[in-house]
Amino acid sequence: MANDNAPFGAQESSLFGGKMLTGGGESDGELERVVQWFEAAGGDLENRFSSVMRQSLDEVLDGQRTGRYDVSELEKTEKTYLGTKVEIVCRAQFGFPRGAKMDYRVAGAEVDSKFSLSGKWMIPSEALGHICLLMCANDKRSSFSVGVVRIGEHVLTEGKNKDGKRHISSAGQRYIKWLCKDGVLQENLLLGLDTATLSRVMSAPAGQSRVDQLFRCVQGRVIDRNAVLTTGKQLDAPKRVRDSRRRLAREGVVVLGHQNDSPRVSHALGLPVAEKGTWVAARLVPAPTAPRLDSRRRVTIEGIDYVVAQSGEPPVPAPRIRY
Amino acid sequence: MANDNAPFGAQESSLFGGKMLTGGGESDGELERVVQWFEAAGGDLENRFSSVMRQSLDEVLDGQRTGRYDVSELEKTEKTYLGTKVEIVCRAQFGFPRGAKMDYRVAGAEVDSKFSLSGKWMIPSEALGHICLLMCANDKRSSFSVGVVRIGEHVLTEGKNKDGKRHISSAGQRYIKWLCKDGVLQENLLLGLDTATLSRVMSAPAGQSRVDQLFRCVQGRVIDRNAVLTTGKQLDAPKRVRDSRRRLAREGVVVLGHQNDSPRVSHALGLPVAEKGTWVAARLVPAPTAPRLDSRRRVTIEGIDYVVAQSGEPPVPAPRIRY
Repeated sequence: MANDNAPFGAQESSLFGGKMLTGGGESDGELERVVQWFEAAGGDLENRFSSVMRQSLDEVLDGQRTGRYDVSELEKTEKTYLGTKVEIVCRAQFGFPRGAKMDYRVAGAEVDSKFSLSGKWMIPSEALGHICLLMCANDKRSSFSVGVVRIGEHVLTEGKNKDGKRHISSAGQRYIKWLCKDGVLQENLLLGLDTATLSRVMSAPAGQSRVDQLFRCVQGRVIDRNAVLTTGKQLDAPKRVRDSRRRLAREGVVVLGHQNDSPRVSHALGLPVAEKGTWVAARLVPAPTAPRLDSRRRVTIEGIDYVVAQSGEPPVPAPRIRY
Repeated sequence: MANDNAPFGAQESSLFGGKMLTGGGESDGELERVVQWFEAAGGDLENRFSSVMRQSLDEVLDGQRTGRYDVSELEKTEKTYLGTKVEIVCRAQFGFPRGAKMDYRVAGAEVDSKFSLSGKWMIPSEALGHICLLMCANDKRSSFSVGVVRIGEHVLTEGKNKDGKRHISSAGQRYIKWLCKDGVLQENLLLGLDTATLSRVMSAPAGQSRVDQLFRCVQGRVIDRNAVLTTGKQLDAPKRVRDSRRRLAREGVVVLGHQNDSPRVSHALGLPVAEKGTWVAARLVPAPTAPRLDSRRRVTIEGIDYVVAQSGEPPVPAPRIRY
């Protein structure tokens, strides 16, 4: 019954008492087409939504200016704006045109963008009868979910807040068609660090010293551009990384990137291989001369074999790596 | 009477009936110290505040995703957030620590950040007795102002909005100590274009074609990175520019940058010399062979003299420029 020429609209009051909005068990061709549109959208849907959430969270946190990496530190106006940012980034990601009444037009349907950090979406009365793209992200758990639902009385709580908005009820949750349920959100590196490590990194007074500490304290795993910017509270992550390489070389710490020698060194040592805009730090020492007694992976740099240092081994200046 | 150990606070009710908040004619040592702090802050204060406003406006417009260049297109949540963004960017620009009650601590004083597009700042009751850093920006007029004022009954309107906020009254305006009055806001190129030009630029369907059109239609003046990103609705302005150079070369259009041959060519032709992250487009034709009849400035490229084309002159492929 729903088609492009007769979309469900809040104005069409005949629908509100009808089966579509009270039952919800009937088939909903328009909703199905929206689901199919996403399934056919191309690219890895989980990656694309993960990127939407990660970009939105990082931009509103504005780590390079504020040093923040935890959404719980956001002010109320910022949390409100986060929903708008997700709407914008998601529109750009999928190239949705604007709807006539709702945020997007997807497969001919009016679709409203709704983001919530907690998964308790606030649904305004204007959305009644329309499809909502429900998105939520839990940065601590590196998890997000995206689903679509047709808003009707049967999916909403009875109670309203002071702005007349209602939540999706527990019973209503089962009407959500999930596009990504518990998808993997790209990790927020700093948020995931233990308190002791964070304190060692963040207590350094100057931005560059904090970035140095990050590469000293977080080794053998991928460190992304945003983590560097947030730690340094400065622009230009690649510059910070170049300076850290220079400053950490005497301690044997290398900060491997995505080009020249880095991928070979990472691969040989069994470290993650960095992509563009990410880095992997490691402390290297010359490999023991009796290889049988040492099972560590080795890499030859300028004729000398190196291994990733164990914690007790004294620091030795790092080999020269073409970064 | 005001000093670092006894800042004016809303809690200190003895102040509210006192002369500080009703008269305003007395000297205010704390306010003076805040003004002096800014005057001594180093760098060009007008440039620094201009940069704060420009960055804040551009980031909330998010032109590369939305194609927007006019703050009148912002949604209500975005306009509210713009004040928060200005607060954040200004804190990062000047390195203010957070105040105990207000946004900043400047020269030992609690200072609240207040931004308004219209210059009608909304002052909450919590700010009473405190200093506000009042900032406003008019993007259409490429103008902004920044001042500080001690909030008291004598500077506020009587009426309150539903949130209990009041404006600075006309009479109150004269108590503002201006740090920059009608300062020059870095130009918003697209906002300043006439409708016909904008329509020729923006009507091209693909992002790269719009950027091509920008360099075709806007010549002889500086085009900044944000204008390119907003026109293209794409990331990576330098890549867009490189592609436009290739696509426009057959029409004789060059897009001069900040390095290699560009500064010499710009300088010789009397064009503005681009700084990093900006470009200047121009259509070149070989110079007429009888120089006496042509007063245009010339530049020699690969042994041939070129001039900036006049509108009637037929297109000739552009010289090879090392960009």
